Amino acid sequence: MNTLAETRILHIPRPFKLESGDCLPELDIAYETYGEFRGDNAILIEHALSGDAHAAFYHAGENKPGWWDVMIGPGKAFDTDRYFIICSNCLGGCQGTTGPSSPDPATGRPYGLSFPPITIRDMADVQRALLADLGVERLVCVAGGSMGGMQALQFFCDYSTMCAAFICIASALKHSAQQIAFNEVGRRAIMADPRWNEGRYYADVPPEAGLSVARMIGHITYLSEKLMQEKFGRTRKDRHVPNIFRPSFEIEHYLDYQGIAFVKRFDANSYLYITNAIDNFDLITSISGTGRTRGEGRARGDIEDLRRKKGLVITFTSDWLYPPAQGREIVRFCNALHVHTSFTAINSEHGHDSFLTDTRTQSEYIRGFLNAI
Amino acid sequence: MNTLAETRILHIPRPFKLESGDCLPELDIAYETYGEFRGDNAILIEHALSGDAHAAFYHAGENKPGWWDVMIGPGKAFDTDRYFIICSNCLGGCQGTTGPSSPDPATGRPYGLSFPPITIRDMADVQRALLADLGVERLVCVAGGSMGGMQALQFFCDYSTMCAAFICIASALKHSAQQIAFNEVGRRAIMADPRWNEGRYYADVPPEAGLSVARMIGHITYLSEKLMQEKFGRTRKDRHVPNIFRPSFEIEHYLDYQGIAFVKRFDANSYLYITNAIDNFDLITSISGTGRTRGEGRARGDIEDLRRKKGLVITFTSDWLYPPAQGREIVRFCNALHVHTSFTAINSEHGHDSFLTDTRTQSEYIRGFLNAI
Repeated sequence: MNTLAETRILHIPRPFKLESGDCLPELDIAYETYGEFRGDNAILIEHALSGDAHAAFYHAGENKPGWWDVMIGPGKAFDTDRYFIICSNCLGGCQGTTGPSSPDPATGRPYGLSFPPITIRDMADVQRALLADLGVERLVCVAGGSMGGMQALQFFCDYSTMCAAFICIASALKHSAQQIAFNEVGRRAIMADPRWNEGRYYADVPPEAGLSVARMIGHITYLSEKLMQEKFGRTRKDRHVPNIFRPSFEIEHYLDYQGIAFVKRFDANSYLYITNAIDNFDLITSISGTGRTRGEGRARGDIEDLRRKKGLVITFTSDWLYPPAQGREIVRFCNALHVHTSFTAINSEHGHDSFLTDTRTQSEYIRGFLNAI
Repeated sequence: MNTLAETRILHIPRPFKLESGDCLPELDIAYETYGEFRGDNAILIEHALSGDAHAAFYHAGENKPGWWDVMIGPGKAFDTDRYFIICSNCLGGCQGTTGPSSPDPATGRPYGLSFPPITIRDMADVQRALLADLGVERLVCVAGGSMGGMQALQFFCDYSTMCAAFICIASALKHSAQQIAFNEVGRRAIMADPRWNEGRYYADVPPEAGLSVARMIGHITYLSEKLMQEKFGRTRKDRHVPNIFRPSFEIEHYLDYQGIAFVKRFDANSYLYITNAIDNFDLITSISGTGRTRGEGRARGDIEDLRRKKGLVITFTSDWLYPPAQGREIVRFCNALHVHTSFTAINSEHGHDSFLTDTRTQSEYIRGFLNAI
């Protein structure tokens, strides 16, 4: 029998201040928890761009588990027999946490582009509010992959007094020009879709064509060139002379499918806001207080607190979107802050997706790391 | 004073048979020549996806030379004091040679999607027709980069009796899944643009937004990650807190500019037809007669003829779109056909664009190769 989980919503009826100085009049946070809370055994899991609060176990009546179920559960890397695992949908998302598709209390209509710009730090602050509500005052670890790794780093640095450790997987201290470029083309594809309509599409057909193109670009970068070649090569789905304006190669059908599947579950404006937060993320300027969007007068964890902490940076050799070199930069930066940070580049052929699919070696590293905290 | 050139049009008023079996009722071929024809000194230059017949010198009144002027001219790699250089716009293009934007003689209106699918072999056949008209019966060499390299290989194999050598730069025997994927996303972006209108947009505003996105994707793949980082990094164009729906980073402005510049000079349907020809290119099945679109009953150069020929394959270390490994595949294939083929991977940081920009070392190799023929 499958272990069940459900997404709950924490409603915060008070204004929530963002790093930009803007306020959200109220806030919903969608989250799930797995395992039993015993005061000192909490781990916060952070999801990637298209993830959600449903990280593990099964929703009643569904036969597909959460997005990181391979890593979270009894006896797994994040062992729910030992740890209390929390995962929440990120701020700006579209799976229960307040985002551009949520109703603006002032109008009753979806925010759309009147939703304020958000940052990775804002996402961390929202999670801090959730932990406060749950009565979680200390974390064994904050962990995540891709954008989840950025959130993990930001949370760890901003709330250093409550974190013993971080695990940052397949991620970066900040985006390179090429990483920004891929995101920007995705955003352009969405905004080029007339159905986007400056973000006002919620009463109408959403910009599915544009969002689908954005997702297709993403999927090219998530797979290694080698795996894509082995999996699809030049195999054709049809055996006839192709209609040149319909997909013919398997890889074309795969991307087409990924695009169509994505638009059913994701909001185009969320895609714009979240990728913008990712591109603007820059941990070094953020925690040194030189960031251009840093809010004023807010207490942050003292960097001195980091001295007693531990970090684990995991990368994958075939990940060309967040290559091991960017993981090494994280390690250098964290070690300069006197966080004892380990590094591994796991041999894997799945590209960036390895953090979701290559669980064996990854689990060993994480299990060993958590045991040593 | 700049050396002048002009694009001429060869009109062929007869039906032109394509590899698919389809016929074009008539054909225009736009071409330029540089240097003086002396019977045995002709070199055919092939352009890439977005190139045209204007490879070198200046058009009257213009201050920008042809796209490969750094390589073609007196004393340059393709020395116009010695060689008679010919370059024509490819079939399916939009710079003078018949393509989907050309008028269909049957209707007087642009072909649009009634233009038949074309192949790299069709492009070679069109060039053969041009050479016949020019009275060129032998070529010292056929040469090109990127898609031009594919055309060079196809022409060399199909018309082996008239070619002494080929130079194939930054290209491949056939596209990998990832290369198809990048092209497919570009095509999807164009077709997702409602202005595309199933290819019928010539009397109206063309699908500029979609074509621009396609071009932006292309430009990401043309530059090396390292060069993009050095050139743009995370530098911002504006100094204020950005409007998140307008470009802010320099790299975003760069891509935006490239997209806008491209739609002014290129036809969206040509983009679809030509990238389709590129993705379907597969030299091995093509010359072994097992290709699915191979026409029947057509005389091709005897592969035995290749034994006395020479080839040069040039790649660039930072080119991740057509990496050196694909160049090595060309060499292995050609050497198996007993073409004496040399290989070089030139150290360069410009990525795929190196074949257009890194001229010094490339010129040395080409000059030496041509001297040895």
